[in-house]
Amino acid sequence: MAKSPEQEHPTKAFGWAASDPSGVLSPFKFSRRATGEKDVRFKVLYCGICHSDLHMVKNEWGFSTYPLVPGHEIVGIVTEVGSKVEKFKVGDKVGVGCLVGACHSCDNCANDLENYCPKMILTYGATYYDGTTTRGGYSDVMVAEERYVVRFPDNLPLDAGAPLLCAGITVYSPLQHFGFTKPGMHIGVVGLGGLGHVAVTVISTSPSKKKEATEHLGADSFLVSRDPDQMQAALGTMDGIIDTVSAVHPLLPLIDLLKSQGKLVMVGAPNRPLELPIFPLLMGRKIVAGSNIGGMKETQEMIDFAGKHNITADVEVVPMDYVNTAMERLEKADVRYRFVIDIGNTLKAA
Amino acid sequence: MAKSPEQEHPTKAFGWAASDPSGVLSPFKFSRRATGEKDVRFKVLYCGICHSDLHMVKNEWGFSTYPLVPGHEIVGIVTEVGSKVEKFKVGDKVGVGCLVGACHSCDNCANDLENYCPKMILTYGATYYDGTTTRGGYSDVMVAEERYVVRFPDNLPLDAGAPLLCAGITVYSPLQHFGFTKPGMHIGVVGLGGLGHVAVTVISTSPSKKKEATEHLGADSFLVSRDPDQMQAALGTMDGIIDTVSAVHPLLPLIDLLKSQGKLVMVGAPNRPLELPIFPLLMGRKIVAGSNIGGMKETQEMIDFAGKHNITADVEVVPMDYVNTAMERLEKADVRYRFVIDIGNTLKAA
Repeated sequence: MAKSPEQEHPTKAFGWAASDPSGVLSPFKFSRRATGEKDVRFKVLYCGICHSDLHMVKNEWGFSTYPLVPGHEIVGIVTEVGSKVEKFKVGDKVGVGCLVGACHSCDNCANDLENYCPKMILTYGATYYDGTTTRGGYSDVMVAEERYVVRFPDNLPLDAGAPLLCAGITVYSPLQHFGFTKPGMHIGVVGLGGLGHVAVTVISTSPSKKKEATEHLGADSFLVSRDPDQMQAALGTMDGIIDTVSAVHPLLPLIDLLKSQGKLVMVGAPNRPLELPIFPLLMGRKIVAGSNIGGMKETQEMIDFAGKHNITADVEVVPMDYVNTAMERLEKADVRYRFVIDIGNTLKAA
Repeated sequence: MAKSPEQEHPTKAFGWAASDPSGVLSPFKFSRRATGEKDVRFKVLYCGICHSDLHMVKNEWGFSTYPLVPGHEIVGIVTEVGSKVEKFKVGDKVGVGCLVGACHSCDNCANDLENYCPKMILTYGATYYDGTTTRGGYSDVMVAEERYVVRFPDNLPLDAGAPLLCAGITVYSPLQHFGFTKPGMHIGVVGLGGLGHVAVTVISTSPSKKKEATEHLGADSFLVSRDPDQMQAALGTMDGIIDTVSAVHPLLPLIDLLKSQGKLVMVGAPNRPLELPIFPLLMGRKIVAGSNIGGMKETQEMIDFAGKHNITADVEVVPMDYVNTAMERLEKADVRYRFVIDIGNTLKAA
């Protein structure tokens, strides 16, 4: 007979889980494995609430299993390291993002692209090497193989830095990979939400976000995608666009904003196919691409970059028992710009 | 009052035109401009029938004007050159493809990418610099600015070489641009039709084309896209795919054939948007791109390459008055692989 989540592993753990596709989270006892020789164990202090968590607790992508402990923007302080761990010691500030494993033998893994490994193991709701289900950061303790642990720069606040582990790398990686960081480039970012607010020029359906985008978040300009005049004036002006929207939405207006040979990079994951008009792609040798977070090497580079330049996310820190309300507000886009759960101070054992 | 097509220009011309969206072609008198100082005039000997011609005569893309003289795979012998023409002389074998003009001042034009110039002028059914309508190669005589005229290698037969001017460059350009010619690459070509038959590994809905593709056309392998087992076995094996299909068709099975970071390049132009699933793009940092013929410099390179390696199209040469039957057969994909009209010998003045 299969062991219960509470019995699978030797170490008691406690968090909040969804138990069915209603997505409602409630307190949940489970267990974590002992610290393996390559493992880093840490006390979770903060965990961001990603829009993916919302999709996953409601099984909107169709591969959720329950009980599901979400959370993949996890930060905390190391409490134990395995005998072969080289980069971390007790007391270090660390984080774990979307991944906790991969095959380590394919071309992608060899090129530090664990995020494209066909056997990558997601931080929660996936099957780990040992056959047990991975559990995310809405919990008191985390253990992960060293390769998947990121060192947090000392000056980076843990709460406002947590969202960088998913939202940050999701935008950083395509900016690098698709050559959007060259001088003189004009880059658009669609969606001033949890992902969009960490990058540059903003394309949004909401005129009300303009002041915040340009004055507070440092965007160079603001384009209201529902304003035909503004969109017309911006036709063919952008080298690249990062599209962070995970709702179903039209691509044609975005493709039309691109210059010849411009690139539209999707990083949100709508759960239904989008309509792709082919003619406009042909006429400008344009590209629609996808990008999925980043590899571990690049994630560390991104966090180091954020530390050096004091880049953090704008967060609303909430207590653990606020999580269901936070999820409801997130669904209505009522958050600027990322909820982060204060696990360390507010997760109470049952 | 606007002049009639017969009166617009000083030189009498004769061809076949569609007069309405029924698409039926019939004999048509019109006129061509005098040979300008940068112009090359030539007697048309052969003209390929491109699938675009079928779309255009029936106004399936919505921008056709009538009467419409189609044809953009035009070859013949130079009969007159303007005073400033440098590259051609009377008697030369030449060709004109899809383009006869562009702005010559944008970035694309400066980079020999007239094919992506927003003001590019199509060979037929477009408005030329002088305000008159361009007329294609289903006609006895052609005149074009030197920049848009391609020199035909002496050894390349005019009939079997004609389709290279559109079908050939359409496949050649993305093979080059998207890096598909590197050693060891595994490239798929979807659609063994007029475009698909000039390239390498074939993905087709028709098992009956296998023998021809592998034995006669030199494809390395053949994949029947309607065979789930074959498709399953080929998952994640291709670096790039050139999709030549201009009918509406599913993209997901093709995206699934790509390796991580593989590229699906659309060169056919379906007249309705296709369904684009976003998840599979994200999970492999995959790309869906468009490519539209090629610039004039690249077109000349392609023709020279074809001449050097004796690459031609497989054609069925038909008389001018067979054109409506040819169009009907093309619509049913009943041609292997390109119709070419023998203009020189069969176009009779009314």
